[in-house]
Amino acid sequence: MVKSKIIAIGDELLLGQIENSNAAFIAQKLYNIGIPVHRMVTIGDVREELILELEDSLKNFNVTIMTGGLGPTHDDITKSTLVNFFNDKLILNESVLEHIKKLFENRGMEMPEINKEQAFVPSKAKIIWNENGTAPGFWIEENNKIFISLPGVPFEMKPMITDSVIHMLKEMVVPLLGYYQKSKTILTTGITESALAELIGDVKTIIGENNKLAFLPSATGVRLRIDVTADSEENADLVMSKLIKKVTEKIGKYIYGFDDDTLNKIVHNQLVKKGLTISTAESCTSGMLASALTEFSGSSSFFIGGINSYSNVTKIEILGVNADTIHKYGAVSEETAIEMATNVRKKFNTDIGISITGIAGPTGGTDEKPVGLVYIGYSDEKKAYAIKNLFGNNRERNRLRAVNAALSILHFELV
Amino acid sequence: MVKSKIIAIGDELLLGQIENSNAAFIAQKLYNIGIPVHRMVTIGDVREELILELEDSLKNFNVTIMTGGLGPTHDDITKSTLVNFFNDKLILNESVLEHIKKLFENRGMEMPEINKEQAFVPSKAKIIWNENGTAPGFWIEENNKIFISLPGVPFEMKPMITDSVIHMLKEMVVPLLGYYQKSKTILTTGITESALAELIGDVKTIIGENNKLAFLPSATGVRLRIDVTADSEENADLVMSKLIKKVTEKIGKYIYGFDDDTLNKIVHNQLVKKGLTISTAESCTSGMLASALTEFSGSSSFFIGGINSYSNVTKIEILGVNADTIHKYGAVSEETAIEMATNVRKKFNTDIGISITGIAGPTGGTDEKPVGLVYIGYSDEKKAYAIKNLFGNNRERNRLRAVNAALSILHFELV
Repeated sequence: MVKSKIIAIGDELLLGQIENSNAAFIAQKLYNIGIPVHRMVTIGDVREELILELEDSLKNFNVTIMTGGLGPTHDDITKSTLVNFFNDKLILNESVLEHIKKLFENRGMEMPEINKEQAFVPSKAKIIWNENGTAPGFWIEENNKIFISLPGVPFEMKPMITDSVIHMLKEMVVPLLGYYQKSKTILTTGITESALAELIGDVKTIIGENNKLAFLPSATGVRLRIDVTADSEENADLVMSKLIKKVTEKIGKYIYGFDDDTLNKIVHNQLVKKGLTISTAESCTSGMLASALTEFSGSSSFFIGGINSYSNVTKIEILGVNADTIHKYGAVSEETAIEMATNVRKKFNTDIGISITGIAGPTGGTDEKPVGLVYIGYSDEKKAYAIKNLFGNNRERNRLRAVNAALSILHFELV
Repeated sequence: MVKSKIIAIGDELLLGQIENSNAAFIAQKLYNIGIPVHRMVTIGDVREELILELEDSLKNFNVTIMTGGLGPTHDDITKSTLVNFFNDKLILNESVLEHIKKLFENRGMEMPEINKEQAFVPSKAKIIWNENGTAPGFWIEENNKIFISLPGVPFEMKPMITDSVIHMLKEMVVPLLGYYQKSKTILTTGITESALAELIGDVKTIIGENNKLAFLPSATGVRLRIDVTADSEENADLVMSKLIKKVTEKIGKYIYGFDDDTLNKIVHNQLVKKGLTISTAESCTSGMLASALTEFSGSSSFFIGGINSYSNVTKIEILGVNADTIHKYGAVSEETAIEMATNVRKKFNTDIGISITGIAGPTGGTDEKPVGLVYIGYSDEKKAYAIKNLFGNNRERNRLRAVNAALSILHFELV
C-alpha cells in the first residue's frame, strides 16, 4: 500500500486565523487515484518541526505533500529547509523568473527585488508550475520517497494539484501499486438515504465483492461513493462504468451529477441548454436562490431578475400576491407560494417562476406552522404547484436547504 | 510555556469528505487565553494511531484537545482507547443518560439501545456537558497533563469549548503560566492596511515593548490583533483597555466591532436600534446583500424587500430606472447606481435604499469598464450618492467584496 501524508506549514494556521481547507481538497484528489492519506499535520513556520516531519516521512510515507511557507519573506522556511535536509543547493530558474516578472507586469508593477528570490529553486527538484502566483512548487525524490512542496494559497495550490501533481503521481506511483483504484461520487437530490438504499437493494450483488459503495448524506443531498479496484487502469475504468450503469438503472432519476458537480452549476447548464428564462420570488431566503442562480458567468442569458419579498407588504404591493390569499392561508402556505411563483413569472415575463416562502426560525413558529416549514412554488406556462418541506430548527441550515430544494425542483423540471 | 495540541479523529477527514473547521476554532479560543497551539494532527479511526498521539502528548504537551470518534458505532474508538490508555473503566452516568433520552424524546423518538452506551463515561473523567448532542465530552488529568475529548460535530463541539473548556482551562492552567495573556481583535472597514498603519504611526510607542500588534488583512476588511501580557488577569485587562482606547483614538472611525463580530450583525443591530427600514436593488450580486441583511432573526423589523435587477429590462421595467440613464452612462455607472438606490427606496417606501451594480466577471469587461468595477449606491430622504470600487478578476470574490462594501457604507451612515 502507498501511504501519504499532508503537512500544512504556517503560524497563521496554528493561531486559528485561517482554516486549512487545502488538506481536504488534496486528500480527496489523492484518494481518487488510490493513494489514501494516512495523516495530516499542521506545524508552525519552524525549521526544526519541519525537519522532524521530513524524517518521519522518509521512514513511513511514500508520498508527502507540503503546503505553505514558500513566500518571499524570512518567515517562509519551507524551501531553505528542504534544500538543507536533502543536501541540495538553489539555482536560478530563468523561466520561473520570467513568469514572476510577467505577473507583476500584468498588475502594472515592477517586480520587487525580494521576489527574485522565488526564482531560485532546489537543483534536484522538478518544478511544479504555478500559473496563478509567484511561488513555484517542487517535486523532490529521495530513497524512493516523493516530497512535494506547494504554496499555501488555495487559489494557487488547487490548480497545481489537479493540473500537475495528480498526473505526475498517477504516472509514477500508481503503477507501483500493482492495482488501480478509481473512485467516483454519484450526486443525488430529492431522495433520502434510506429510500435510496431500498431502491438499490443488496449492495454486494450490484457492486461485487471487490468494490465498495458508501452512502454520504449531506444537507445538499445524498452522495454515493463507488470505489473500484482492478489490475489495470483500463479494467478499473471498465468496471466503474459498468457499476455506474447498474446504479443508474436503479436510481437514475435522482442523479444530478458526479464528483465536483454542484446542483447550481447543473441547473445553470440545463437553463442555458433549454434556452429558458427564469425569475425568483423569495421570502425567508431573501435573495439566496437568486444569488445561487447567478453564481456562474453566463447566467445573464437565463436569469432576468427576482424580488426578495421578505415582508407581506412587499408580497402584496410589489409582487401582487392577493392580500386575501395571505389573510386566508398565511404568508407561508401552498397558495401563497404558487401565487408568488406565478406572479413573478408574469411580472418578469420569464418562462419559469420559482418561489420560496417559509419560517426560517428560530422564532416565528406556531404549532400549526412550525419553524422549518418551507414551501417551494413552481410556475411555467403550463402548470403551477408548490411543494411542502419540513426542515429543522437551525435558521442558517433551513435557508440553505430551502435553496437546495428549489434547485432540486428546477433540476427535475428541466431534465 | 504551556504547549497544546489538537487531534482530529475520523476517516472522513482523511478521505477529504469534510473539512476540519474545528481546529482553527479551538486554536483561536486557546490563543486568546494564552495557550497557543503548537501542533494539529488528523488521524483516522485507528486505535494504534491515537495511542501514539496520546504517548506524544504525555511527553510533550500540557493540554491536548481531541475532536471526533465519540459516536455510538463501532467505528468510534476514542472513548474506549482513552479508557485503556489511562487504565480506567466505564461507569454509567445517570444524568447523561437522562439527557440522551430527553434529546430523543424531543424529536418524538425512543432512544435506540445503541445510544445508551454513550452514557457510560470514564470513571476518572470530568464530564463536559453537551447541550446539543448525545455524546458527552471528557476531561482527564494524568501526570499534570490535561486531555480533553470532544465530539467532532462543530455544532456540538463549539459551545462546549466556549461554555466549558475555556473556563476550566483558565481556572486551572492559566495561573500556572505565571503570566496572563489576553488577545483582542479590532475589526475595521473602509480603509486599507497601509492607510491604517499610517494613522497608527509608530506601533512600539503606542503598544509598548511587551505587547504585540498584528495587521491581518482579509477580503472583508483589515483586522488588528492586540496581544497583551501581564502578571495578573486584572492588569492584563487594564492594559488591554488602555491600548484599545489609544488605538481607537487613532482609527476609531474605521472600527466596526471586535473579535467575533461581523459587519452583517453590526449593521443589523444599527438598523434595529435606529428603527430604520431598508430595501435593496442588486445587479451583479443578485440577492447576496439582501440575504446578508436577513441572516439573523429579527431582520423583518427593518428589511422590507429588494429587487434583483440582473438584467437591464428588470432595471428599467421593474425598478423604473430611466432607459436614457442606462443608454447614456451604462448599467454599471454612478448614475444608474444612484437611480437604483433611490427608486428602490421609493418603491418599497423605506428609509434607506441601497444598490449594487458592477461587472463581476470573468467576462463582460471593457478597457473603460473593466471586470471588478462596482458601484454602490446609497439613498435616504436627504441625500443620494454612489461610490466607485475597483476589485479584481475573481467573480466570487468580487461579489463578496461588493456586498461587504455596501455593508460598510451602511455602517458609516448608521453610526
